[in-house]
Amino acid sequence: MTSSNGGLPLLTPMSEVAGRLAPQVGAHALEKAAGGRGVLLGGVPGAPAADVVIIGGGVSGANAATVALGMGAQVTILDRSLDVLRRLDVQFEGRVRTIFSTRAAITDLIRKADLVIGAVLVPGAAAPKLITRDMLRTMKQGSVIVDIAIDQGGCTETSKPTTHSHPTYVVDGVVHYCVANMPGAVARTSTFALNNATLPFTLALANKGWRKALSEDVHLRAGLNVCEGKLTCEPVAIAHGLPFVPAEKLLAS
Amino acid sequence: MTSSNGGLPLLTPMSEVAGRLAPQVGAHALEKAAGGRGVLLGGVPGAPAADVVIIGGGVSGANAATVALGMGAQVTILDRSLDVLRRLDVQFEGRVRTIFSTRAAITDLIRKADLVIGAVLVPGAAAPKLITRDMLRTMKQGSVIVDIAIDQGGCTETSKPTTHSHPTYVVDGVVHYCVANMPGAVARTSTFALNNATLPFTLALANKGWRKALSEDVHLRAGLNVCEGKLTCEPVAIAHGLPFVPAEKLLAS
Amino acid sequence: MTSSNGGLPLLTPMSEVAGRLAPQVGAHALEKAAGGRGVLLGGVPGAPAADVVIIGGGVSGANAATVALGMGAQVTILDRSLDVLRRLDVQFEGRVRTIFSTRAAITDLIRKADLVIGAVLVPGAAAPKLITRDMLRTMKQGSVIVDIAIDQGGCTETSKPTTHSHPTYVVDGVVHYCVANMPGAVARTSTFALNNATLPFTLALANKGWRKALSEDVHLRAGLNVCEGKLTCEPVAIAHGLPFVPAEKLLAS
Amino acid sequence: MTSSNGGLPLLTPMSEVAGRLAPQVGAHALEKAAGGRGVLLGGVPGAPAADVVIIGGGVSGANAATVALGMGAQVTILDRSLDVLRRLDVQFEGRVRTIFSTRAAITDLIRKADLVIGAVLVPGAAAPKLITRDMLRTMKQGSVIVDIAIDQGGCTETSKPTTHSHPTYVVDGVVHYCVANMPGAVARTSTFALNNATLPFTLALANKGWRKALSEDVHLRAGLNVCEGKLTCEPVAIAHGLPFVPAEKLLAS
Amino acid sequence: MTSSNGGLPLLTPMSEVAGRLAPQVGAHALEKAAGGRGVLLGGVPGAPAADVVIIGGGVSGANAATVALGMGAQVTILDRSLDVLRRLDVQFEGRVRTIFSTRAAITDLIRKADLVIGAVLVPGAAAPKLITRDMLRTMKQGSVIVDIAIDQGGCTETSKPTTHSHPTYVVDGVVHYCVANMPGAVARTSTFALNNATLPFTLALANKGWRKALSEDVHLRAGLNVCEGKLTCEPVAIAHGLPFVPAEKLLAS
Amino acid sequence: MTSSNGGLPLLTPMSEVAGRLAPQVGAHALEKAAGGRGVLLGGVPGAPAADVVIIGGGVSGANAATVALGMGAQVTILDRSLDVLRRLDVQFEGRVRTIFSTRAAITDLIRKADLVIGAVLVPGAAAPKLITRDMLRTMKQGSVIVDIAIDQGGCTETSKPTTHSHPTYVVDGVVHYCVANMPGAVARTSTFALNNATLPFTLALANKGWRKALSEDVHLRAGLNVCEGKLTCEPVAIAHGLPFVPAEKLLAS
Repeated sequence: MTSSNGGLPLLTPMSEVAGRLAPQVGAHALEKAAGGRGVLLGGVPGAPAADVVIIGGGVSGANAATVALGMGAQVTILDRSLDVLRRLDVQFEGRVRTIFSTRAAITDLIRKADLVIGAVLVPGAAAPKLITRDMLRTMKQGSVIVDIAIDQGGCTETSKPTTHSHPTYVVDGVVHYCVANMPGAVARTSTFALNNATLPFTLALANKGWRKALSEDVHLRAGLNVCEGKLTCEPVAIAHGLPFVPAEKLLAS
Repeated sequence: MTSSNGGLPLLTPMSEVAGRLAPQVGAHALEKAAGGRGVLLGGVPGAPAADVVIIGGGVSGANAATVALGMGAQVTILDRSLDVLRRLDVQFEGRVRTIFSTRAAITDLIRKADLVIGAVLVPGAAAPKLITRDMLRTMKQGSVIVDIAIDQGGCTETSKPTTHSHPTYVVDGVVHYCVANMPGAVARTSTFALNNATLPFTLALANKGWRKALSEDVHLRAGLNVCEGKLTCEPVAIAHGLPFVPAEKLLAS
Repeated sequence: MTSSNGGLPLLTPMSEVAGRLAPQVGAHALEKAAGGRGVLLGGVPGAPAADVVIIGGGVSGANAATVALGMGAQVTILDRSLDVLRRLDVQFEGRVRTIFSTRAAITDLIRKADLVIGAVLVPGAAAPKLITRDMLRTMKQGSVIVDIAIDQGGCTETSKPTTHSHPTYVVDGVVHYCVANMPGAVARTSTFALNNATLPFTLALANKGWRKALSEDVHLRAGLNVCEGKLTCEPVAIAHGLPFVPAEKLLAS
Repeated sequence: MTSSNGGLPLLTPMSEVAGRLAPQVGAHALEKAAGGRGVLLGGVPGAPAADVVIIGGGVSGANAATVALGMGAQVTILDRSLDVLRRLDVQFEGRVRTIFSTRAAITDLIRKADLVIGAVLVPGAAAPKLITRDMLRTMKQGSVIVDIAIDQGGCTETSKPTTHSHPTYVVDGVVHYCVANMPGAVARTSTFALNNATLPFTLALANKGWRKALSEDVHLRAGLNVCEGKLTCEPVAIAHGLPFVPAEKLLAS
Repeated sequence: MTSSNGGLPLLTPMSEVAGRLAPQVGAHALEKAAGGRGVLLGGVPGAPAADVVIIGGGVSGANAATVALGMGAQVTILDRSLDVLRRLDVQFEGRVRTIFSTRAAITDLIRKADLVIGAVLVPGAAAPKLITRDMLRTMKQGSVIVDIAIDQGGCTETSKPTTHSHPTYVVDGVVHYCVANMPGAVARTSTFALNNATLPFTLALANKGWRKALSEDVHLRAGLNVCEGKLTCEPVAIAHGLPFVPAEKLLAS
Repeated sequence: MTSSNGGLPLLTPMSEVAGRLAPQVGAHALEKAAGGRGVLLGGVPGAPAADVVIIGGGVSGANAATVALGMGAQVTILDRSLDVLRRLDVQFEGRVRTIFSTRAAITDLIRKADLVIGAVLVPGAAAPKLITRDMLRTMKQGSVIVDIAIDQGGCTETSKPTTHSHPTYVVDGVVHYCVANMPGAVARTSTFALNNATLPFTLALANKGWRKALSEDVHLRAGLNVCEGKLTCEPVAIAHGLPFVPAEKLLAS
């Protein structure tokens, strides 16, 4: 499993939470009362398990696969990196299908899927629209899409942000779960997870004082936007036509 | 795993469905928006998994344990049969805690539990009230009870039947999920599962005709209540003070 | 796993050998040079695994599934007993699809299969013809059928016995492997396996003498056909219109 | 598992295919009709499994071990890197024996082996001759060597390339499988696997045109041998005493 | 795993404890300071694991195998029942070698073993002497025998009971661990385990009174030796030439 | 698993041995006769397993967890690196609890532990005193601490080095195992393990001669302390006020 999340390590725990939550909310959305096709992820002996397709094998996707497999589903992961697929093949001991991601492969797989989990996160960029409206129409009635990438625009043409109180809506018979802040559903777990990631930085600030802590740690320093009345965040300075001073220079003075 | 459900083999698939569904609905009830304590069953690396206690290691309980483990929870199963616990220890390769069920053990374990699954089914009898109101008060705020035994009265003093549209209610801060017909949530899977169990009987009726089929199969015959205007179900006949004729006699004539 | 083979426990080791051998010979037949479609059972990361369908979940079928899974295939087992499917679901921890066997299910599944293993053994009866010529025509070009049941006539309409030197032939583009004595391929393993099953009987004969050994063991006695010039096998006696003497009577004298 | 293959990532899928195929062709060669000792890789309960020794724990070796284990064999892997052995110990959860590779260890292990898989690939160099003729003579009659390294000369003194139509020959009673193009046996799977690895390069050429694509990607550029009538491959130029022009220079003009 | 222990179900927990304890005490005896050959059961990557041979695949043997495997050893189990070996093969998913037990097999296997666990328990009979003095002499210096069967005389010719304070002695260079009451080493666990097995009987006596409880339960009744001044245990009565009264008769009066 | 041990790769095998040995010696110390609380690591069905807490998830800690899990214990690992915890979560497929290490977490967990394994190794520095005397007093009577870090001072305030002949002592009712040279207990395995790591260097010295070997390998050269009467180890030279000559200079001359 990739342990970091592009260049945003503090967000890795949130990707883990969202990934593990995705099959759970997807399974719920597949229940009849939630508008789904009434399919149990794991089936029972003699009756088939659900077909879960996960697009993207990064932190979220790998965690989603772990839970979907654990609930008994037939799981397929698509990714454009063979090295990622190899790592997942070893991690899951061959129990997930790993498929090289192409438009043709996605088109083919979502048609038979009961649950599609969109886990394509491109750090700092809008998620690519991998499922178009036309492709959506080929999906089974009552199937479900969980779009983890919704915070970055979603990876489905028909995705739009929803809330924990009204988490789903239906387009062309397909239930969409697009809650923008998924980890909020399990706030207690998310809080502990986030604290674990941020604690070393908090301790550094508390023990060394902010100036020393920022001087010694490039990651903390990169988070400094305004200091002693001066802008230390270059993009903001440029955007507003204001003067910019590098954090290093201010801290050294 | 016990493959039959006491003397009611046609109901085994429904126990399997309910058992596998229990951690799923329990996990959903643990979400903040559903009134739960906001805990993710599997936690994430560095943040603890939820504590799931399953009372009863029969068909429902074993299936519930499979899914709860798969979702990453810490699972404890209680049962009063050591042979059942041994079978589960082998089946789960030591990954569930198997505890001999006593009132003391239940009292101790539910206090720390995030999710309690009541899976104590006594065929043809009311479920024993294993969790009293007093014990409920010791449970954690926002913890969840899924009472699979609700069709037989429930194994919790505070259980009362609910529906898929309003599945939960809260007593003493503990969320109760007591849907009377759990398999209805996944109607498609349940239908296939039930068909598999009943198909041999349906085929016998279709191929042989009802009279021959019932003559040759004691189980089918036991399902005959009224035949040619006569009562063939003794308990009903007695209850209503009506004459009773054994099915065997009628079929032979 | 069922440990015995109907009423023929001495043949169980041969069913185990044939079952474990089936995916191996099937994988070989799938190679291009053998006429198959050139598919690797386990695929590789990014390229899909083969689809293996096993008809029958008894001794042979369960052993075939173990090896097919181990080689990385996607495995589906069909059986008409839900209890058998439940046992397999536990044994393989949900990693095989267990499907209730109906004509419709078989028809549907073999169409997509790369390898079909016929493991339907009805002790003392001809194997049912589960795959008809019409169904064969729907299968993929270069797919393979391994018919373990060939000793009892085979479970495919187009099956006819072959030998280790010419193990396969092609009908409608489908490679048929129908070697009548499969365990002979691994003679060394089969010999040890058979010896293990027969050794207790051999020892009884050697230690007690034949008369005492047969007197004390109903299974050995049932194998006595002719004794002191008299026929002790009733079906043979009847078939040839000869006098019959029960073995018990002869041995007692 | 190492995800790349030295400096030749496009060949990694072929190493994966050859590795997974090795136990399959080895098991086939162990069959009596193929000249082997008649041993089933997995044995059966009560009769021992075959002893498989894999020399080299890289991409091919690790994939070979996965399938050999899955077929039920007792698997030993030798490698000269402790870090490789540690990774394999974790990957296979202790189910393979990992042995530090020395001449003494190889000599000792192949004597008892039923199947030896030579998976020692040194990128761009001849495979070392790890099994000499003298060592071969100590092996069991009917045992099998599958030499994956045959494309680089083979790792056995007695190896010489064979074809899919005549894949094996016998020296000193030991069956040698030395097919030069193993992945051709499963052409369909190999084609998909190779396409997955090359597709990004093909798309770059198609979308950007060859000049832009080669300019932007050092790996593509390294594949350019002749361009606009000039040699851009230095070793070839030197070998033939012809003038050489760096690809960078030609592309920039 | 067999869940009962012949006809003595109350002793099953003690067989479980002794079985799980055997690899632990055996591993300790293999340490240099304890006289063993200084071998770590699981080895480490690159250095071989220890060879553990378990004679007997019943309750003790299966539990011993579970822990020995878990500690990383190479485990072989011998038993004379193929059905037992099949069950173990499924339970351990092929990770233990299952060998049909013959004198030849035992002789061969103990010669290479680092640790031999004697787990041959014949209810109500002396354990067979499976390892003779002559066989002992072929074992490796510093290897270890743990004789679980010591309470019934031991399954080794050289076994004699020892205590927890002096648990081992050496014969012919082989360390013998023959503590007569193994479960006493883990008294806390053993007490809980035994209580679980006896609690239903204790509750019956407490709730119903001894007379009613013994009348209703043949197992409790079988434990009654003296009642109202009369002997109700026939073997004791016979042995001492005293009058015997069946428990049933006394209880009925 | 981290494959190296900070900057000391030759010591990695010793960390592996000590880690795998830790649960074994801890389980022994938990036996009644050794002063422990009489708990079996794995418990038995119906009676709870022991609670094992491992502080530190590096080489030793990960190996300790493998064996503790294998013996059936409930295992918790603490570490201050989320990436380490993620890797362990994948490696153990969720079967260990991974907890972010803080003083609060350690304090809370050791109170309930049966066995604590201190595996916090900071290369080249004294181990931090993670368990104070005050914390020790909260632990259970008869619980056990195995301090793998004792060679670097130990990670417990009350740790002091012991020997294989007297491995344990008791403070505040807690058994301490602090043997300074743990791998010596399994000298045979440790010797092979160490040889594997050092062999490449030994071969280089033997094949190339010392001067050439040291010239070509910075790691060998770093081990040179005195050469041709001159000190080549700077810290020693400084400590004794003696002249220092860099090894590179001497070797080049």
